[in-house]
Amino acid sequence: MAKHNAFYAQSGGVTAVINASACGVIEACRRHADRIGHVYAGHNGIIGALTEDLIDTNQESDEAIAALRHTPGGAFGSCRYKLKSIESHRAEYERLIEVFKAHDIRYFFYNGGGDSADTCLKVSQLSEKMGYPLTAIHVPKTVDNDLPITDNSPGFGSVAKYVATSTREAALDIESMCATSTKVFIFEVMGRHAGWIAAAGALAGESAEQAPHVIIFPEIAFDRAAVMARIDEAVKRHGFCVIVISEGAQYADGTFLADAGSTDAFGHKQLGGVAPTLAGMVKADLGYKYHWAVADYLQRAARHIASRTDVEQAYAVGKVAVELALDGQNAMMPAIKRVSEAPYEWQIEAAPLAQIANHEKFMPRDYISEDGLHISDAGRRYLSPLIQGEDFPPFENGLPKVAKLEKVRVARKLPDFTV
Amino acid sequence: MAKHNAFYAQSGGVTAVINASACGVIEACRRHADRIGHVYAGHNGIIGALTEDLIDTNQESDEAIAALRHTPGGAFGSCRYKLKSIESHRAEYERLIEVFKAHDIRYFFYNGGGDSADTCLKVSQLSEKMGYPLTAIHVPKTVDNDLPITDNSPGFGSVAKYVATSTREAALDIESMCATSTKVFIFEVMGRHAGWIAAAGALAGESAEQAPHVIIFPEIAFDRAAVMARIDEAVKRHGFCVIVISEGAQYADGTFLADAGSTDAFGHKQLGGVAPTLAGMVKADLGYKYHWAVADYLQRAARHIASRTDVEQAYAVGKVAVELALDGQNAMMPAIKRVSEAPYEWQIEAAPLAQIANHEKFMPRDYISEDGLHISDAGRRYLSPLIQGEDFPPFENGLPKVAKLEKVRVARKLPDFTV
Repeated sequence: MAKHNAFYAQSGGVTAVINASACGVIEACRRHADRIGHVYAGHNGIIGALTEDLIDTNQESDEAIAALRHTPGGAFGSCRYKLKSIESHRAEYERLIEVFKAHDIRYFFYNGGGDSADTCLKVSQLSEKMGYPLTAIHVPKTVDNDLPITDNSPGFGSVAKYVATSTREAALDIESMCATSTKVFIFEVMGRHAGWIAAAGALAGESAEQAPHVIIFPEIAFDRAAVMARIDEAVKRHGFCVIVISEGAQYADGTFLADAGSTDAFGHKQLGGVAPTLAGMVKADLGYKYHWAVADYLQRAARHIASRTDVEQAYAVGKVAVELALDGQNAMMPAIKRVSEAPYEWQIEAAPLAQIANHEKFMPRDYISEDGLHISDAGRRYLSPLIQGEDFPPFENGLPKVAKLEKVRVARKLPDFTV
Repeated sequence: MAKHNAFYAQSGGVTAVINASACGVIEACRRHADRIGHVYAGHNGIIGALTEDLIDTNQESDEAIAALRHTPGGAFGSCRYKLKSIESHRAEYERLIEVFKAHDIRYFFYNGGGDSADTCLKVSQLSEKMGYPLTAIHVPKTVDNDLPITDNSPGFGSVAKYVATSTREAALDIESMCATSTKVFIFEVMGRHAGWIAAAGALAGESAEQAPHVIIFPEIAFDRAAVMARIDEAVKRHGFCVIVISEGAQYADGTFLADAGSTDAFGHKQLGGVAPTLAGMVKADLGYKYHWAVADYLQRAARHIASRTDVEQAYAVGKVAVELALDGQNAMMPAIKRVSEAPYEWQIEAAPLAQIANHEKFMPRDYISEDGLHISDAGRRYLSPLIQGEDFPPFENGLPKVAKLEKVRVARKLPDFTV
C-alpha cells in the first residue's frame, strides 16, 4: 500500500491524559510504518496546520513518546480556534489542503471536545467538497464529559478522581476542626453547562450522609433558600457541611451565579468565583464560618492522581483512531462503549462524527437525586467505574517526571499564512 | 516501674500527616505497655481534656492505628483553643489536673504548631506550679513551617510537595494553551506571615526561567508596579506566566492584599481571595487573560501526594515524643535536625519547649532571590529535600483508604465543665 503522512493536533482545553491519546496515536502510527511515514503534530493545534508550523514527531525517541502517557497538558500545544463553515471561509480550507498536499498528509487526527469534533467534521468533508483525499478521525477528550455517544470522554475520569479524592481529603480536614473552626467548605469545580465534574465529587462519600453533603449542578436551577436549608441541616446534623459546586451553577433564568463578564474565543462566557459567591451567601444567610477552594486548572492537569481506567481509555482511543483511519473510515470517532457495569468492561467502537459534533451531553436527570442536591444511585453506578485504578507517573527529585520533547520543526514549503 | 496513662491531642490546623504522628505516638506507647496503660485521645484536642471527652485508643485495632499513617485530617478532632495564663485562668488548669488525676494520666502529648507549643508549655508547668506529676511533650506539626529550632515542621513537606506538583502540572496546561488562551495563572497557597509554602511552589521548575516565574511572599512588601513588570516580562519571553502567591501577601504598611475582615479564635485575621485580587490587577494593568486557583484546605489535606520524607519525620517525632516522656524529659519537643543536606540526612533531637513556644520562624531573607520575586539557590537547597519520596496511600474503589476508628469514649468520672 502507498505510504503517506499523518497530522495530529490537540484542541481546546487540555486534560491530564490528552497526551496519553497522543501517545496512542503516535505509537500506533509507528507500528504501521509501512503505511504511515511521518506523524506531524500541529504546534498549537489546527493553527499549526494553517501556519505550516509542524512538529516532526518522528524525531522524538520511543522513550519520549512513551513518556507522553504520564505527562499532563498538551505536549504539542493546543488552541481554542474553531473553523467556520467551508462556504464562508474557503481560504482557510484551501490553505489546509495546500499544507496537507505540501507535506503529503492524508490522515488527520484531531484530539478534542465538542467544538473540535465540529472542526474535524468540516475537515473530513474536504475530501468530498474539495477533492483532496483525506481521512479525518476525531480523538475524543474533554474533562467536561459532554460528548455524546461515548460512555465517557477521556480526561473526565481523571478529573473525577482528582475531585473525589480532594473532596474526601478536605472533608476529613474540616470534620476534624468543625467544633471550633470552619463549618462550611465550598469546593468549586469545572463544568460550564454540565454537572459531571461536580457529580464526581459525590463519590468521596459512600452516601449523601457522608461528605460531600451538597452538590450544586448547572442543570438544576439554583434555589438559594433550598440550598441554605440543606447546608444548615448538614451542619446541625454532622457539625459541618461540604459542598461541591459547578462553576456553571445558575439561576432558573439562566444567569450564572458567578459571571466574570468576559467571553472566550468560542463566545462562551468566562466563569470563575462561584465559590466565593456562595460563601458570601452562607455568611449572610447562616453566619457559619466558611472556607472555599477553587481547583481551576489544577483539576484538569492533575496527572499525578489520574484514573488508570481513564489513562487506558485515552490511550485506546488514540490507538483505534489510527486503525480506523488505516481502514479508510473517514469522519469517525472512536467511542467508548460500556459493555458491562459491574464489573466495568468497555470496548472501543467507531461512531460517526456527524452524530457527535455540536451535541452536548448533559447529566441525565435521573443521575441526580430527586431534590436536585446530590447524585442518585444511578449516577453513582455510572460514575464509579471511571475513577477506578491508579496510574502514578514516575517521580524524579520529588516531582512527577514529564516528557521532554525535541519538537523539531518540519521545513516550511509554503508562503506565510495569517490566522 | 509504675504504669500510668497517656493523653494525646491534636491542635490547630490539621495536616496531611498529623495522623502519622498520632500513629507514631500510639504505636510507641503500645510498645511500652509495661509503663503506659491507656492512650486517651482528646476529642477535639485540649477541649476533650477539659470536658473529659476522651477516646480510648486502646480499643482501636493495630490495623486501625497503622492506617492513621496514611489518613489526612485530624482523626480525633482538633481545635483552635489556646489556654490563657495559669495566673488568670486557674480554673481551666485545675480542671485539667482533675481530669488527669481521675484517669491516671501522667503523660501529655500535644500535637500542634506555635500556639499549641505555648499551651503545651503551660501544661508542662502544672507539674511544678500545681504539684501534679505530669510530663508534657510537644509533637510538632504545622504546614506553615514556622516553628523554630526544628529543621522543618511535619506537615510542611507534604504541602510543599502538593504545591510544587500542582504548580508543575498546571504550568504544563497553561503553556499548552497560552497562544490563544490564558496567559497568566495565579495560584494562591497558604502562609499567613511566612512564605514557606509559596516558596515550595518554586520547586516546580528547575530555575526562575521555568514556571513558576513569580513567587509572592508575605515577607517581601508587595510592589504592584514591580510585580506587574515581572509578569509582563515573563509573558513576553515565555508566552505565559505562572505565579504562586501566599495568602499573606502584603503591602509595605502591613495591609494584606486580601483581607476578609474576620478573625479566628486566636485573633488572627482570616484571609482569602488574594488570587482574585491579584488577577484583577493583572486585568487592569496588563489586560492579559488570566485564571486563578485557590488550594485552601486541599493543600494541607492532600495525603495522596504526601512527601515520604515528611511522613517519616511526622511518624518519628511522635515516636520520639513517647521516648522522651518515658525518659522523664518534661517541656520538650522532638525537633528534626538536618545532619547533612546532600544527601539529606536527619535525626530527631530534643529541644526545650521554652525556646519554641510563641516564636515564629520566617523565611530567611537569603532564601529569597535578591529581587524578592523568586527563591534563591539557598532556598532551593533547603526546600528540595523535604519533598523527596512518595508514600501513596492504599486505594479502594478508586479512592484513598482512610482509617476507620471506633472512637470508644472513656466513661466520665467528673461533673460537666463548660469551655
